[in-house]
Amino acid sequence: MPVDGSFGVKGTTFDAPDLGQVRIREDALVVIDAEGSITQALESDDPGYAETEARLRREGSLTVLGEGQYLFPGFIDLHIHAPQWPQSGTALDVPLAEWLNTYTFPLEARYEDQRFARDVYGSLVESLLANGTTTAVYFATTHLPASRILADLCLQRGQRALVGRVAMDSPETCPDFYRDPSARAAIEDTRALIDYVNGLPGNSGLVRPIVTPRFVPSCTDELLGGLGDVVGETGAHVQTHCSESDWAHGYGLERFGRTDTATYDAFGLLTRRTVLAHSNLITLDDMDTIVAAGAAVAHCPLSNAYFANAVFPLRESLDRGLHVGLGTDISGGPATSIRRTMTDAVVASRMREDGVDATVDPSRRGVAGSRVTLAEAFWMATTGGGVALDLPVGLLSPGYAFDAMIIDTKVEDSDLLLWPSLDTGSDVFEKSMHHATRRNVVRVWVQGSEVRSVTGR
Amino acid sequence: MPVDGSFGVKGTTFDAPDLGQVRIREDALVVIDAEGSITQALESDDPGYAETEARLRREGSLTVLGEGQYLFPGFIDLHIHAPQWPQSGTALDVPLAEWLNTYTFPLEARYEDQRFARDVYGSLVESLLANGTTTAVYFATTHLPASRILADLCLQRGQRALVGRVAMDSPETCPDFYRDPSARAAIEDTRALIDYVNGLPGNSGLVRPIVTPRFVPSCTDELLGGLGDVVGETGAHVQTHCSESDWAHGYGLERFGRTDTATYDAFGLLTRRTVLAHSNLITLDDMDTIVAAGAAVAHCPLSNAYFANAVFPLRESLDRGLHVGLGTDISGGPATSIRRTMTDAVVASRMREDGVDATVDPSRRGVAGSRVTLAEAFWMATTGGGVALDLPVGLLSPGYAFDAMIIDTKVEDSDLLLWPSLDTGSDVFEKSMHHATRRNVVRVWVQGSEVRSVTGR
Repeated sequence: MPVDGSFGVKGTTFDAPDLGQVRIREDALVVIDAEGSITQALESDDPGYAETEARLRREGSLTVLGEGQYLFPGFIDLHIHAPQWPQSGTALDVPLAEWLNTYTFPLEARYEDQRFARDVYGSLVESLLANGTTTAVYFATTHLPASRILADLCLQRGQRALVGRVAMDSPETCPDFYRDPSARAAIEDTRALIDYVNGLPGNSGLVRPIVTPRFVPSCTDELLGGLGDVVGETGAHVQTHCSESDWAHGYGLERFGRTDTATYDAFGLLTRRTVLAHSNLITLDDMDTIVAAGAAVAHCPLSNAYFANAVFPLRESLDRGLHVGLGTDISGGPATSIRRTMTDAVVASRMREDGVDATVDPSRRGVAGSRVTLAEAFWMATTGGGVALDLPVGLLSPGYAFDAMIIDTKVEDSDLLLWPSLDTGSDVFEKSMHHATRRNVVRVWVQGSEVRSVTGR
Repeated sequence: MPVDGSFGVKGTTFDAPDLGQVRIREDALVVIDAEGSITQALESDDPGYAETEARLRREGSLTVLGEGQYLFPGFIDLHIHAPQWPQSGTALDVPLAEWLNTYTFPLEARYEDQRFARDVYGSLVESLLANGTTTAVYFATTHLPASRILADLCLQRGQRALVGRVAMDSPETCPDFYRDPSARAAIEDTRALIDYVNGLPGNSGLVRPIVTPRFVPSCTDELLGGLGDVVGETGAHVQTHCSESDWAHGYGLERFGRTDTATYDAFGLLTRRTVLAHSNLITLDDMDTIVAAGAAVAHCPLSNAYFANAVFPLRESLDRGLHVGLGTDISGGPATSIRRTMTDAVVASRMREDGVDATVDPSRRGVAGSRVTLAEAFWMATTGGGVALDLPVGLLSPGYAFDAMIIDTKVEDSDLLLWPSLDTGSDVFEKSMHHATRRNVVRVWVQGSEVRSVTGR
């Protein structure tokens, strides 16, 4: 290894600097410094390529991708409910409000038990890293100790993460067995988690706190206002749910006479570092408000098919420059990988474009022009996620953190199969996004540190 | 091994005798005879259970599932374009008619090359078996030699299959480089494949021929009528596409002044053994016609999101007793497993129920009551597929072929994770269907013969 701790990775890379375009660089040479940031990303005809490659080889610090291996940026999952991990793939049969009360709040209440929290959260962080999710934005529960454990585990395993202690204090909508005792207590615990995460030994920004009012129905005005103050004082990130379903959207309208977006804005919760999950029922005015704030939407298409009653107006949002990334919404969405979410985003956009009811005339069946491409979904899963979080992640370019994965198309017993005589670079990209599983994700780095290395050939 | 060649499998089984119900039998004992048919399926309180188990153990012919392993019926995939396997996951960006001409017909024309056919078809059969697809209904191409190769490979690998040589002779819609030279030639080759498959040495019905007019737009009246005659004479199965997209549906209406369903019926192609792929735009009258014929629909929800312009009226079809099974529609659908198709069927039904356009009032946004459950989708993927094909497959009951798989929830590096303290049997079923990959499918049998055995613990 070189004295300065730098290293290089050479091979074909896929990333998306611009919305709608996949950049394919064959035999690219990515150079990473000791802090885990990319300092150079050279193509073979760039000046210095041969010299840099030779130096890295000499120093024994060059990884050369094997045949059939490709380098991608790590995925950014903007919306994960960590405590719901044990019910992923189940409990999808009832509407949102009932889902919360019947399945989800009882499960989340169990995280009073720190041993249970450690088991579940350890499993989740491991599974997400194995799927190439290098940045994860987590809702934890109302429990401060369990929330600390999640932050600890992310730092230990080396996953970039934003960890939020959930705030929910409304006696009208939250059950007695799972509710903050008061707005003040929720605000104090939120501050305590922020201090804890920022003070974690060895944490130089890999794990960050995020202020987390659950959503409008579960928070009193006092809580929303108090959390807005915390955000104003600390500059912390914010996450919440926004206009997810007819019920949730209608609840906010009735209570405040305005949309969720406007409510969050009024309480100081809509900032450049805010992630609004879902937002399926936002209006065009809401879009303008979100754009003006520089806030972002976490689009969760699979979850939305079960709980949202409509498809997020993705095309319009992207066209207005609204920041949009993707979220699995574990466990509202029964899948673990953002790779799957990418393809679900495309499918949802196609179904929105064409409509669903065959008895309606095609001219009125759907919302014309709604579709997004797989390349656009890939941008959202990587570059767009970084933009949403205001963090230098998602691209294999100088100045970005080296958060990356190798997808291996030659793993045994895999559905990801190439036909070299037929497949173009673009085909390799599309097949990888449609057919890879965690078994194909053979190496993963976060901030230059290797957090997964398996072999399947 | 016992003298008579019988054997048993003991463990927890999941199957679906009735639409909407998953039957869970703990410690069931499934007994299979030398011909690969199930003779008994005993539960622990059934008479003879202990004696039968003891006998099988004594004879060394009992497989006992390990902890975390579960027995499921094999999946039945009613709609696969075998030659399109190399483009699975790509080429999803244009409408159906353009997709055929730009990507698909040029690819299918390559199967003139028998070596290419052998490579691709071998890979496909292997991949489907690895995913637990024990019965596959295949479109091949117009090439008789390559179609024979597909049938050979299915028999060699032990996959239950229906193999169809594609008939398409219309100079107006089929390209010069990929078209039957005449209706007569297409009919002759269809007969030749039927004779070849039925006469394959060692084939006692595992591989069957299926008459395969591509779809209304690509066939002349003479071809449709001639194939109808073949079906009348041979009683062979039939497969084709029906009212898939606005374009295809409209083409048939304009040419014949009637729907595709009525056209196939008029040409003698709608029988108890007919599988109509897609059928998204069928009318209620069409449903009655299909029910009266005892024919079936292969529902392909993922493909339909890309190419169909609407969602198949699944709920109404099931409620009328129409036979419906599931199809991946490789490569119109970019996934390999019917397990994925099951969850896509649920998602499509939910999106049809709720609608997609958030600006429309909820009362008019979707088609109320459209949803199907995961249990119903599982029925379609197994029992319903068997009903569609008029074959005794899809259930773990006496009289059915032992087409089955073991799903192992304890495979290393897998997203299928159970929490024994929380998960009910129903949860195990749902998680397996949402999260299993081929790595979890550790053993597969077709007609009692083991066709896959791997270990991942």
